[in-house]
Amino acid sequence: MDFLSKLTSALPDTPILTGPDCAPWVTDWTGAWHGEPMAVIRPACTAEVSQIMAMAHAGNVPVVPAGGRTGLVGGAHAPDALVVSLDRMNTIRQVTPRTRTAIVEAGVILQSLRESAAELGMQFPMTFGAQGSATIGGILSTNAGGSNVLKYGNTRDLCLGIEAVLPDGTVLDLMSELHKDNTGYALKHLLIGAEGTLGIITAAVLKLSPAPRVRSTAFLACPSLTDALTTLNRLQEATSDAVEAFEYMPAHYMAAYADMHPQARQPFTDIHGVNILVELASTAPRDAALSPEGTTVLQDTFESTLATLFEEGLLTDATIATNDSQRAAFWAIRESAAELSLAGPRAAIVNDIALPLDEIASFLDRMNALLPTLDADAFDMTVAHLGDGNIHYTVRPSDKALKDTIMSAVEAEVRALGGSFSAEHGVGQSKLSSMTRHKNTAALDTMRAIKQAIDPTGILNPGKVIPPASSSL
Amino acid sequence: MDFLSKLTSALPDTPILTGPDCAPWVTDWTGAWHGEPMAVIRPACTAEVSQIMAMAHAGNVPVVPAGGRTGLVGGAHAPDALVVSLDRMNTIRQVTPRTRTAIVEAGVILQSLRESAAELGMQFPMTFGAQGSATIGGILSTNAGGSNVLKYGNTRDLCLGIEAVLPDGTVLDLMSELHKDNTGYALKHLLIGAEGTLGIITAAVLKLSPAPRVRSTAFLACPSLTDALTTLNRLQEATSDAVEAFEYMPAHYMAAYADMHPQARQPFTDIHGVNILVELASTAPRDAALSPEGTTVLQDTFESTLATLFEEGLLTDATIATNDSQRAAFWAIRESAAELSLAGPRAAIVNDIALPLDEIASFLDRMNALLPTLDADAFDMTVAHLGDGNIHYTVRPSDKALKDTIMSAVEAEVRALGGSFSAEHGVGQSKLSSMTRHKNTAALDTMRAIKQAIDPTGILNPGKVIPPASSSL
Repeated sequence: MDFLSKLTSALPDTPILTGPDCAPWVTDWTGAWHGEPMAVIRPACTAEVSQIMAMAHAGNVPVVPAGGRTGLVGGAHAPDALVVSLDRMNTIRQVTPRTRTAIVEAGVILQSLRESAAELGMQFPMTFGAQGSATIGGILSTNAGGSNVLKYGNTRDLCLGIEAVLPDGTVLDLMSELHKDNTGYALKHLLIGAEGTLGIITAAVLKLSPAPRVRSTAFLACPSLTDALTTLNRLQEATSDAVEAFEYMPAHYMAAYADMHPQARQPFTDIHGVNILVELASTAPRDAALSPEGTTVLQDTFESTLATLFEEGLLTDATIATNDSQRAAFWAIRESAAELSLAGPRAAIVNDIALPLDEIASFLDRMNALLPTLDADAFDMTVAHLGDGNIHYTVRPSDKALKDTIMSAVEAEVRALGGSFSAEHGVGQSKLSSMTRHKNTAALDTMRAIKQAIDPTGILNPGKVIPPASSSL
Repeated sequence: MDFLSKLTSALPDTPILTGPDCAPWVTDWTGAWHGEPMAVIRPACTAEVSQIMAMAHAGNVPVVPAGGRTGLVGGAHAPDALVVSLDRMNTIRQVTPRTRTAIVEAGVILQSLRESAAELGMQFPMTFGAQGSATIGGILSTNAGGSNVLKYGNTRDLCLGIEAVLPDGTVLDLMSELHKDNTGYALKHLLIGAEGTLGIITAAVLKLSPAPRVRSTAFLACPSLTDALTTLNRLQEATSDAVEAFEYMPAHYMAAYADMHPQARQPFTDIHGVNILVELASTAPRDAALSPEGTTVLQDTFESTLATLFEEGLLTDATIATNDSQRAAFWAIRESAAELSLAGPRAAIVNDIALPLDEIASFLDRMNALLPTLDADAFDMTVAHLGDGNIHYTVRPSDKALKDTIMSAVEAEVRALGGSFSAEHGVGQSKLSSMTRHKNTAALDTMRAIKQAIDPTGILNPGKVIPPASSSL
């Protein structure tokens, strides 16, 4: 009996898709990767995932776990593999404001958890463009980032416990609600960010926080990125760490947005080199209280701090959103990044890089000098989670044959400045050559040893994250 | 040539202590573990640590890394092993307020880093009793906790990058300053908390935060632990997360302190069942500003929130510290925990346990019923980092022969409530049997596979953290 027949008889009630029914799993939304899976199986519970993995292990069948498949690096690409889709395991088991925890299955969509938390006055602060499709299993497996990392951390920082199925079908139950637990190796952290190469995450205990009672949002213009970093530090101090987001957009980003959306409200009439979208949040009733002028106390604090920064020459312009629609208009500018960076006829090179906070200006200066020497007609678009050092430096080359040259040059500059070639997107398949070029040998060797120890037959998400050893390149 | 002679000729300038000179390393400060090391070597740099490990690897010599040796679980116990003491690698290489980072060697004493940061207006928020001796390498290797975890996290949450020497002498350089870096497995997190069984941490990049400009400290009395948890949630919301510490002491703790320190200022005249030391902190100038009454705005916010909690019956008593000496007097009560719990003729059983936040009251209720049935004359002393669910439940049995019975009973209750038998102290040697009894098999097997992959000959801190497989028990 072939593997799929065995699987069907072992799990008669579990949907198994083959042939044309697998179409949605043949490519991902980036469109960069194509490959027909052997089949897609949609288990209903952890016990089924365990049984599937035990059978795949016995049959030496490659398995690729799938969540919302919104990744940008081909991590869920599954040619000839059995896709284990977690989409049916989508129960939010518990949201507990009292302990500020949520217990969820891996297939829960991020947006659903955010909404369930909000109904109870809480928030799950992870937020990014794809949150309407991305799943909890996926954001944990990729240690997703986004705009709020500055205040709340990456996905791993929001996770108290996980459950995962190991390559041989063993269920690893680490579903702890504990804030302190020093009983051996940090297996939770090893599985988070492993992009499904060490285990299939099936459930998690996540941290919630109280939903902010009030926010204050502004566009700022600073003379330089150095001044912007000082401004961030000063705002964090002045508000005792109320800064949720601090997003950088250069002049040509703002201009491109204005061209594309001529009717949209622009924050500034003047053109500025360093534009920052900043958002403060507070849960404190005193910050939400209205002053005699009808503004919130949070906004008053914000304004008085900005006034001081103006006097010191750290700011050149500022517009505070005075209502929700203005706030939404400001965020619409930032959220047009994909549209602005990726639209157009020339395939873009997405560089999701991280740098030490005080090297960001150097990096952009270097690239401004270097890029024209590599491709005189290249077009670059930058947007950055400046507060956490994460720059999306997207380049559209004049000729796609220049892609590798440009990407290598970017990564060499990043490495020279102590940065990383993948900040929040992960490695998947599209960054394997970057791993070979830039990850240090000791780290790669240690990763290989761990992969070999946990998945000795290499059936779980094969060919992802860890590049082949140089001898076999 | 024997191993030590080889070591001496390879590293002629590196101090190697033998015989009586090893006396300080024969036992640790708990006095529970004794054993003469083969020798103690004191390298000056990472390259020397690497050379030592390469030679130990070649010679199959067991190695135990040593920091401040303030651990409570025998993790640095080194009979017949080569101790690698990091004490000479004690340079604070860099403290950078602008990027809120510090780069330090493993032998730096926690208190020294805290002082260096404070001189520049910053703080490294990790704090606990042994900070005058504990080293950065030690707190990372044990993922130390303490009183400020509630707001700032455990040591792993304060670490951006590490450097470690692997068992074969390979240097694993993960000295990143980055806040986002998704390029493969979280090796940093695997080494943190591994108690020196996977590598010797030699340096780290740590996160700093701005030093609070103002603090407000109080003793509260709540009708119940359930009310105390509500009070914590409410205070966090009201202050937008300004609560640094939330420490619980029961009535008999307060009474024991008053007996031992009759001249000390007591926070309350009445006896209360649930006493809480709470501390708020803010970096905001507006919170440090003085109101017309001469109190800080932070204190005013605190007082008005407490007033509401009183009205709702969540508080029964409160005393706010009005000056630094009163604040110090309040903390002196909390910091007497070791003195109160461990003093006396009967050896204490230190249970460093963690529980889900809403199970703490159940645990204490259960133990109050259970303990007298196990040992009618047992004496228990509890103090808890209540905000993060970490209880130090210390028991002095009437007969030390009852130690295992009592410890097993405590751990069984903890496990039944979803807790952990080691919250912040780690496993070392003294919790090995707890690992065997309570750690789930899948986690233990995965830990063994990782240990085998990274340290196949088992020379690094042998016999710690991972209990022998059951067949060899």
